[in-house]
Amino acid sequence: MSTAERIVVIGGVAAGPKAAAKARRCNPRARITMVEKGRHVSYGGCGMPYLISGEVESADELMATPMGTLRTPEFFKKGKNIDVLIRHEATRIDRDAKQVEVKNLETGKTTALDYDKLVLAVGSTATKPDLPGADLKNVLGLACMEDAQTLVAALNSGKIKRAVCCGGGLVTLETVHGLVKRGVETAVVCRSDQILFRLDYEMGACARRELEKGGVAVYTGETLKAFIGKDGTVCAVETDKRRIEADMVLYAKGVKPNTKLAKEAGLAIGESGAIQVDECLRTSDPDIYAAGDCAETTHLVTGKHSYNPRGSTANKMGRVVGVNATGGSDTFPGVLGNLVLRVLNLQIGKVGLTEKEARAEGYDIETVIVPGFDKAHFYPDADRVILKLVADRKTGKLLGMQGAGHGEVVKRIDVATAMLTLGSDVYTLANLDLGYAPPFGSAMDPIITAANVMKNKLEGRAVGISPVEVKKKLDDGGDFVFLDVRNDDEYEEEHIPGTTLIPLGKLKERMGELPKDKEIIGFCAISLRAYAACLTLKANGFENVKFMDGGMAAWPYEREAKEG
Amino acid sequence: MSTAERIVVIGGVAAGPKAAAKARRCNPRARITMVEKGRHVSYGGCGMPYLISGEVESADELMATPMGTLRTPEFFKKGKNIDVLIRHEATRIDRDAKQVEVKNLETGKTTALDYDKLVLAVGSTATKPDLPGADLKNVLGLACMEDAQTLVAALNSGKIKRAVCCGGGLVTLETVHGLVKRGVETAVVCRSDQILFRLDYEMGACARRELEKGGVAVYTGETLKAFIGKDGTVCAVETDKRRIEADMVLYAKGVKPNTKLAKEAGLAIGESGAIQVDECLRTSDPDIYAAGDCAETTHLVTGKHSYNPRGSTANKMGRVVGVNATGGSDTFPGVLGNLVLRVLNLQIGKVGLTEKEARAEGYDIETVIVPGFDKAHFYPDADRVILKLVADRKTGKLLGMQGAGHGEVVKRIDVATAMLTLGSDVYTLANLDLGYAPPFGSAMDPIITAANVMKNKLEGRAVGISPVEVKKKLDDGGDFVFLDVRNDDEYEEEHIPGTTLIPLGKLKERMGELPKDKEIIGFCAISLRAYAACLTLKANGFENVKFMDGGMAAWPYEREAKEG
Repeated sequence: MSTAERIVVIGGVAAGPKAAAKARRCNPRARITMVEKGRHVSYGGCGMPYLISGEVESADELMATPMGTLRTPEFFKKGKNIDVLIRHEATRIDRDAKQVEVKNLETGKTTALDYDKLVLAVGSTATKPDLPGADLKNVLGLACMEDAQTLVAALNSGKIKRAVCCGGGLVTLETVHGLVKRGVETAVVCRSDQILFRLDYEMGACARRELEKGGVAVYTGETLKAFIGKDGTVCAVETDKRRIEADMVLYAKGVKPNTKLAKEAGLAIGESGAIQVDECLRTSDPDIYAAGDCAETTHLVTGKHSYNPRGSTANKMGRVVGVNATGGSDTFPGVLGNLVLRVLNLQIGKVGLTEKEARAEGYDIETVIVPGFDKAHFYPDADRVILKLVADRKTGKLLGMQGAGHGEVVKRIDVATAMLTLGSDVYTLANLDLGYAPPFGSAMDPIITAANVMKNKLEGRAVGISPVEVKKKLDDGGDFVFLDVRNDDEYEEEHIPGTTLIPLGKLKERMGELPKDKEIIGFCAISLRAYAACLTLKANGFENVKFMDGGMAAWPYEREAKEG
Repeated sequence: MSTAERIVVIGGVAAGPKAAAKARRCNPRARITMVEKGRHVSYGGCGMPYLISGEVESADELMATPMGTLRTPEFFKKGKNIDVLIRHEATRIDRDAKQVEVKNLETGKTTALDYDKLVLAVGSTATKPDLPGADLKNVLGLACMEDAQTLVAALNSGKIKRAVCCGGGLVTLETVHGLVKRGVETAVVCRSDQILFRLDYEMGACARRELEKGGVAVYTGETLKAFIGKDGTVCAVETDKRRIEADMVLYAKGVKPNTKLAKEAGLAIGESGAIQVDECLRTSDPDIYAAGDCAETTHLVTGKHSYNPRGSTANKMGRVVGVNATGGSDTFPGVLGNLVLRVLNLQIGKVGLTEKEARAEGYDIETVIVPGFDKAHFYPDADRVILKLVADRKTGKLLGMQGAGHGEVVKRIDVATAMLTLGSDVYTLANLDLGYAPPFGSAMDPIITAANVMKNKLEGRAVGISPVEVKKKLDDGGDFVFLDVRNDDEYEEEHIPGTTLIPLGKLKERMGELPKDKEIIGFCAISLRAYAACLTLKANGFENVKFMDGGMAAWPYEREAKEG
C-alpha cells in the first residue's frame, strides 16, 4: 500500500511522535526520522500544571508510557525503529530537492535529511511579555518541560510567598491550583473584563467566584505595565491600577503557531495564522503534512478554518498524518473548540459556540442557563452544575454548550460534543437515553432539563432573560419588577439588591401587590419556581412576565449575604 | 391551545407525576387528578438500593424535591393544583363513557372519574418467586417503597448475618453493595451462566470478579429449588447444586409491565408485552396515553418495539404525555436499552446492542475490547476502564458499547449514547473533540482508542479475536500458539495457563522459536504491545497472526497468580 520510503517528522512532542508511531505501524519498512529541538520527546505537556501542584510527582511521569517506560530516543529506536534526533532544529526545507536542513544545537553542525514525505509538527510558541522587567529572575512561562522544571525549582526553593499570574486563560488557571495548594498567596491579572475570556461572562464569573473563595485575588480589566525588580529578581507587578507584590510571575497569555519554517518554504498559511491543511492534513505541498499546534483546523459548527491548538487534537491529527504519509487514506474533519479545565475545585468548560461567538458569527440564537445536580439529588455527593446552551432560534440546532460547577461538568460537555459533531438539535438532545443510576446521574439529567427549557423557550411556552441582560436593564435604570419568589429564609441568607420578595407559595394571595402594566422578571434559586410563578401570573392576566435564566445560581454580580 | 379540560393520570410514582406536572404547566385551567394505589407519590424508586446501603439516610429523601420539600398529595395540590388520590386503585376504564372506576383501598368504596384525556402510568410488577417457602419471613422483594422499608427494618434488627440475592440483574447487584457495606455475608445466585446477563460474557465477568474480590459468593448456572424455613423465617436457600444458609433472601428477577387495566379496556398490547403506543405515546385509543414502565418503547438501533423499563425513560415519557394530553405536540422517539450501575466499586453498563443482541438480530458485526485509562495515565487517581464496541462490519456504523472499570465508565457510555442516537459510525467517533485536561481524560480518550482499534479491524490493518473465541479454541483443543508478549515479571505476577512467553523486546531475536505454519494469537496487558508484535511477525513472513482483544485486562477466565 505504501510507496513512501523516507519519512521525516519535524517536532517530537505530541503530533510528531503520534504520526511517526502510526506511520511505523502502517509501514514496517519505511525509514522514519523524527527531529526535535528540545531534550525531551513525546511528553504530556498538558500535565505540566500538575507537576506544579505536586499531583504529578516527577517530570518523568509525563514522559513515560502507562507501563512506566520512559519515551526516550532509545525507546523509539528499539521499540519502533524510529530514529530520533534531539537537540536538532530544522532550519530550512528545500521542497525541490526534498530535503530538510537540520542543525545540531550542541555542535552547531548542519546536515540535510532526504524525505519522500515530510511531517510538520513544529508546535506553537508562548507569547513573550514585551514589558519592562520581563527579563527579571522569576518572571516565568510554562510552555515546555524546561519551563515547568524551572517553575518547580523556584517553588521548591521556599522563597516564593507571593505569585502573580498574568492572563486569565487555561494554563494560568490550571497552574493557580498548584500555587494555592503550595500555600503561595496568588493573584490573577488579566486585561479583559472576565477571566476565561473565551467563555461567556456568567461562566467566567463562576470561575472568578471559585478563585476568590479559594483566597486568590482576581483583577480583571487591568493592563500590565511593568515587572519591578530588586537585585535582579522580580518583586512586584505594576498594572494601570495597582502594584502587586510578587516573588514570582507566571506569564501565560496564549500561544502562536510556529510557521516560520513553513512560510520560508512557501507553504500556504491560513487566515487563522496557522499552516493551512486540507481534510487529509496535507499542506499546499502534497508531500508535506502538518499536524498539531502549528496547523489550523476546521470548526465543525461554523465550517470556518480556525486555530484551536490542543494536545488531544494534536494526537488525533498525528494519527491521521501517520496513515496518509504511508499511502493510506484518512481524514480529520475538525474540532469544536472544546476547552475544559479545573479551576481549584470547579469543573468548567465549553464546546461549540458561546453566546458571544454565536452572535459575532451572526447567528439568530436563543440561550438558556440551567442549574441542576450531577447525580440524583438525594445521592450523598451530588453536586451542582450550571449548563448554558446556545441554539439556533429557527431550527433549534444546538450551537454550543458551556458548563461550570463542582459536580461532573465535563461529562455533559462530552455529550454535547457528540451531539454537536453530528449536528443535532435540542429536541433530540431532550430525549437522549443517558445512563441513569443515582450514583451517576438524575432521572432527568441536567443536560436534558436544559434542552427542555430551551424547547419551552423556542416554542414560546416560556420567556426567559439572561442575568447579563437583567443587569443591563438595572444599570440603565429600567422600570421593571425584579421578583424573587424564594422563601423568606433563602432571601435572608443571600439576595440580589433591589429585588421584591414574594415567595411562590404566597404569590396567589399577594398578586395584587404587583403592577399589571410593568415588566416582571422572576427568579428563584435556579428559576424552576420562577417558571411556575410566570405561568401563574400569565394565567392571571399579567402579560409581560419573564423568568431570569438560572436564578441565583447563575447570577454573576453582587449579592447581599447575611453577616456572620 | 388546549381543549382537554379533565385529565386523569393513573399512577403516581415517576411517569404519572411528571405527566401531571407538565400538563399543569401547559394548561393552567385543566382539572388534573392523579390516582395512586400506594401511600407515596413521586418518589425516586431507583434510590431504594442506596437506602439499604445507608448512603441515603431516610425514605423521605427519596420523596423530597431538591429544596427538601416532601412531594405529598398536599404539595401537588398547593403547589401545582393537582388533585392526588393515594390508596386508590383504578379498577376499570369505560372508554365509551370516558370514565375510570376508582376504588378507595381504605374504605373499599368505588367512584367514577370522568376524563377527557387519560394517562396510564401504572408501572410494572416485580416477578414473584413461585417456589416452596416463598412466603417465609425475610424472603423479600424490592419493588416499592414499602419493600425498601421492610428490608431496612430487617437489616436494622441486627439479626441478618447472611443474605442470598436471587437474580444477577440490576436491582440485585445494586443492593449487594448495601449488604456488603453492612457486613452481611452475601451470596448471589442466578440461573444463567453469567451475572448481568444482558451484557456480554466478558463484561459480566468483570462484575463477577469485583463481587468475588469484595467477598461475595457468586453462583451462576444454578436453579433455585426452594427457600427453607425455621419457625416461619427463612434460614437457607436450596439450589440444584447446593444449600446456602441465609437469614434473608432478596428476590429480584425482573419486572413485568402492568397491563391488566389496559387489556380489559381493549387497548392494544405490543409484541413486547407492554402497552402499545405511537411516537406521541398515544395508545390504540387516541384519548388514552401510556408512559413509563407499563408502556413499550422503540429501540433506536433495531427500530423494533421493545420493553425497556427505566426511571429516566419514565420521566421523559411523562413529559411528552403532559404536553400531548393538553393539546400540544411532542414525540418520544425511543431508547437505546441503556443500563448502567455500580457493582461495589465498579462502574459497568451498556448502551445499544451487545454482541449477543447484535448477533441475535442478524447483524454482520465486528467487535473490539479495549482497556484504557479514564484520566491522563500520569494523573494520580487515573483508573482503568474496559470498553467493548460493536459495529456493523460493512458500514462501520456503531451498534453498541459496553464498559466496565473502576474509572469513569458511565461518561463514555453517555458519549456512545449520543453517537448511537444520531446513527454515527466509528470513523466519526474516532475524531470526536472530547474535553481534554489531565483530571478528566487522556489526550486520546479510551473511547477514541477503541474506535481507532475498530477502524484498524474494519480496514484489515489488524486482525483481532475475542477472549471468548480464544477460550473456545482452547477448549476444543485447537492447535495454535497462545503468545504472551509481556515481560517476565508481569508473567510471573499473573498469567493465563497454556501460554508461550516471549517478551516483545525479545521477539525479533527469538522469532525462530515460533512456527510459521500455525496460527499465532498474541496478547499482553491490554494487547497494545501484542498489536505491535503482530505487525512485526507479519513483516517477517508470519501470515496467520491475531491479537487477543483487550489482553489480560479483558480475559474473563482462569489465571494463575503468584502465591502470597
